[in-house]
Amino acid sequence: MNFKIDNLQYCNWSREIFQINKQAGLDAIHVTIVYHEDFDELKTVLKNWENHFSENSDLIFHGKSFKDIEKAKSENKTAVFFGFQNCSPIEDDIGLVEKVYDLGCRFMQLTYNNQSLLATGCYEAIDSGVTNFGKEVIKEMNRLGLVIDMSHSAEKSTIDAIEISEKPIAITHANPSFWHPAKRNKSNELLKILSKHKGMLGLSLYPHHLKDGTDCSLESFCEMTAKTAEIMGVEKIGIGSDLCLNQPDTIVEWMRNGTWTKSKNYGEGSKNKPGFPKQPDWFLDARGFENLEIGLKKVGFSESEVNGILGNNWYNFYKEMNQ
Amino acid sequence: MNFKIDNLQYCNWSREIFQINKQAGLDAIHVTIVYHEDFDELKTVLKNWENHFSENSDLIFHGKSFKDIEKAKSENKTAVFFGFQNCSPIEDDIGLVEKVYDLGCRFMQLTYNNQSLLATGCYEAIDSGVTNFGKEVIKEMNRLGLVIDMSHSAEKSTIDAIEISEKPIAITHANPSFWHPAKRNKSNELLKILSKHKGMLGLSLYPHHLKDGTDCSLESFCEMTAKTAEIMGVEKIGIGSDLCLNQPDTIVEWMRNGTWTKSKNYGEGSKNKPGFPKQPDWFLDARGFENLEIGLKKVGFSESEVNGILGNNWYNFYKEMNQ
Repeated sequence: MNFKIDNLQYCNWSREIFQINKQAGLDAIHVTIVYHEDFDELKTVLKNWENHFSENSDLIFHGKSFKDIEKAKSENKTAVFFGFQNCSPIEDDIGLVEKVYDLGCRFMQLTYNNQSLLATGCYEAIDSGVTNFGKEVIKEMNRLGLVIDMSHSAEKSTIDAIEISEKPIAITHANPSFWHPAKRNKSNELLKILSKHKGMLGLSLYPHHLKDGTDCSLESFCEMTAKTAEIMGVEKIGIGSDLCLNQPDTIVEWMRNGTWTKSKNYGEGSKNKPGFPKQPDWFLDARGFENLEIGLKKVGFSESEVNGILGNNWYNFYKEMNQ
Repeated sequence: MNFKIDNLQYCNWSREIFQINKQAGLDAIHVTIVYHEDFDELKTVLKNWENHFSENSDLIFHGKSFKDIEKAKSENKTAVFFGFQNCSPIEDDIGLVEKVYDLGCRFMQLTYNNQSLLATGCYEAIDSGVTNFGKEVIKEMNRLGLVIDMSHSAEKSTIDAIEISEKPIAITHANPSFWHPAKRNKSNELLKILSKHKGMLGLSLYPHHLKDGTDCSLESFCEMTAKTAEIMGVEKIGIGSDLCLNQPDTIVEWMRNGTWTKSKNYGEGSKNKPGFPKQPDWFLDARGFENLEIGLKKVGFSESEVNGILGNNWYNFYKEMNQ
């Protein structure tokens, strides 16, 4: 059986988007439900998701283990897995790790772009690695089955997390920096270590992570995928599109600035391009998976390898994590 | 006019202790009101302090500027200045810096022993210095007149804070590491930079910071003070006793473990000595200032230098900060 999984979306959720994802054939998505929200704010967000699930029960349900991906496939729905892009919801309290897991959350970035209490983000000048508290939290995440996501973390912190964690970790949405040297993209060295420890890379379709940005060609993306497969092994690669459909520009401003600065910070953007960038025309939404399928075959991947990249590899990762 | 100031106490507060401080002739104390408490918890602590002030109005009042030290002297009371030993009360929100200032807080450590969102604590393996958020918070603390305290911070972070801050910073309670190489004590290099930027060092009387611990002699402490004066200049030295009178051992356990670990951490203590250590017999409480006066004169300090160390130097620092 083949599964299609987009392992990172942060859309302005609506029935329309759930329908698009289903048209795209997605059996599972990992969605960002919070960035900088604390534990109480997380609970408010979860209530909104309860509404999404009850109002769109013909399309989606809350996914908690790999079995829910199988269930989604058989019921023609999309299983929605929850994740955080920062560790703010656990505040400074190790006890909250179990609580967020019990609330059905399955992925947590140890950092967003800045230093967190756990590790260093990719926008800090110096990277001190996983902290004392970070080591304790990794132990706890391992115990529970909460996936460590290092998409926005700095290099040493990411390598530390890979090596400290007793379970494979994920970089849910980033590309290799050999292709496009964004701060968020990852070095070959790091990708090799990730792969050696059975971790997964979700390739991103967010223009700031793409060579030539919005103008990136499907061919260029698929050639990069082929080179990445040479580095990591094709079975360690998936898709984490980082789609932010229908989000207003105020959201990307909030993602970058949170409440940590009084002056404006543009992160991956710039003063002239402060908002969300446009998607490449071959990946306007998840229906672009179809173009990826064609493009990946064109650069020489076999059908089974393409199916791996488009979902089966993530399915196997979930299977190992949630058992 | 001469002032006596103890620039760090964290006692289990009671009328008895306020009386002892007054007997010791203290015109001002800087007290730790929180360690790991968040903003809401801080507000609860402040309510308790309102009770202390109303029940002991003949002995203490809330100090907010150097003028309150003068007022305390003339009214034969002790002005109590509030400080935090961690940055937890500002959570991840730059807007809370002004709020804690408005609530009458005047000192904040950027870190306790671990990594914070602002900088690195002295118990972390690697010290990445002041973070992106830390730089923003320092700007805000400077603007308001909230003193940066780096007593529990790691070396590079402390030097960063000294150099980034436009106002002098304080190390309210620590000793030089040439005398006793505790992780909490400070290198000569750091002390020189601190002094160059008009910062102050409050010498600690907490046994874990003393050569020979509880058995440390008054003579040894005063000789260390003389050598420190050679490094920093005598006018940059004060006292920050770190007295924790009448605190139960559960408190030191909470200070060290907060909510960041499930296993036990002993910090400056050890499994065999987990609790509060005994004070040296010549500094059982603030009345030990009298012994210090004698001891400091004995090692060759002039009367005016001794008065500086026992309070006037801190008074001058407050004057510069709060004007």
